[in-house]
Amino acid sequence: MARVTLIGGGPGAWDLITLRGARALENAEVILTDHLGPTEALEEIVDTSQKTVIDVAKLPYGKSVAQDEINRLMIEHAKAGRRVARLKGGDPYVFGRGHEEVLALAEAGVECEVIPGVTSAISVPAAAGVPVTHRGLTHSFTVVSGHLPPGHEKSLVDYGALARVGGTIVVIMGVKNVEAITRTLIEEGLDPATPAMAVSEGTTSRQLQVRATAETLAAEMERAGVGSPAVYILGNVAQFANFSS
Amino acid sequence: MARVTLIGGGPGAWDLITLRGARALENAEVILTDHLGPTEALEEIVDTSQKTVIDVAKLPYGKSVAQDEINRLMIEHAKAGRRVARLKGGDPYVFGRGHEEVLALAEAGVECEVIPGVTSAISVPAAAGVPVTHRGLTHSFTVVSGHLPPGHEKSLVDYGALARVGGTIVVIMGVKNVEAITRTLIEEGLDPATPAMAVSEGTTSRQLQVRATAETLAAEMERAGVGSPAVYILGNVAQFANFSS
Repeated sequence: MARVTLIGGGPGAWDLITLRGARALENAEVILTDHLGPTEALEEIVDTSQKTVIDVAKLPYGKSVAQDEINRLMIEHAKAGRRVARLKGGDPYVFGRGHEEVLALAEAGVECEVIPGVTSAISVPAAAGVPVTHRGLTHSFTVVSGHLPPGHEKSLVDYGALARVGGTIVVIMGVKNVEAITRTLIEEGLDPATPAMAVSEGTTSRQLQVRATAETLAAEMERAGVGSPAVYILGNVAQFANFSS
Repeated sequence: MARVTLIGGGPGAWDLITLRGARALENAEVILTDHLGPTEALEEIVDTSQKTVIDVAKLPYGKSVAQDEINRLMIEHAKAGRRVARLKGGDPYVFGRGHEEVLALAEAGVECEVIPGVTSAISVPAAAGVPVTHRGLTHSFTVVSGHLPPGHEKSLVDYGALARVGGTIVVIMGVKNVEAITRTLIEEGLDPATPAMAVSEGTTSRQLQVRATAETLAAEMERAGVGSPAVYILGNVAQFANFSS
């Protein structure tokens, strides 16, 4: 039966992929990658000269057409009997349309194995010394897609509730909306002095980080040049950041 | 300088450790493991006959004494010049006292490298077909330690706010308190018909899972024998569970 392996590639450093993920890449004949995860260093994991590597970030389409085209390519290669691996950044199920790809494959009658990965939401703060949890400080953490600003008609996040849960707030894909997100959380009751930090391109050689408070995070990120892809954290655990800035 | 490598071993299946984590185990002379993660299958990752393996789950102490003893053992072996690896289940920073160990080592003048892992909070539901996020259904997920019941004087979770955030709720270490947690969330406004599911010993050969709703989860887990260690999920994504029960 035609099948595809969907692999979580981890946050960026090539050796943060799992053993199972690396083996699936070795077994693949066709690998579809994009701009996140260990794409840049794929040849550290596997002999790419023996594979057809398709960088879907370079497809000449807009975002939703590109997704259709990714699905089409996976299905076409799998149905032609090739061993297909789809390499995604982080974990396939933490945003990033992983389950959409699973559903599209199922609809086309293509089997899909999903191999989990190290999520950027946890490992990128860790790469700057910040644990998302710490006993006595927090019993929860919420990972939020910052793709839509608070109050957007399509937003599914109640920022008023989020401000009051009491745990660590981790925002990914939220560089563009950092000012709106932090301002809304503060308006909704989050202490403006809450420790905060942000990391861009975490675990790669280009990692950049900055410390701040909820109130100063947007300005500090801009000052330090922390741009996409980035993860930022609001919560007492941010006090553990092991760098100065 | 004396140093320890703290490794996230992933949810249980031995090949869900990272390449970096596996290499650190290979390099270690002393490995401290506990009952979570890939301990059972450690010999699949590394030749254990060449290592001193200490299973700290077997230390004859209560929980907090055991933690002091783990710290003492890591420090003693590291200061004796041995290469020490501390293998934890899941990710070291998702509950599980990882950062406490980092701080204890730092205080003793022992350097610590932290290698992230695949967290059970995301990968265990995935092993039963459930993504923690899905476009159009949820823009956030909250991972909660269910170790303390709602309303406990030491609980740091505002369950009223949690019930209203609007994203997926993932509970780990919450088998004992599942009845109190689901009842409180429903009292606080979570729809009792919210899809729910639970998985115990996820990614291992003993994986067991059950589907339910927020209202029926506690009873269904008991009926199906889904016990610790388990992860359960409340949220629309639970509808994707790819098994019947």
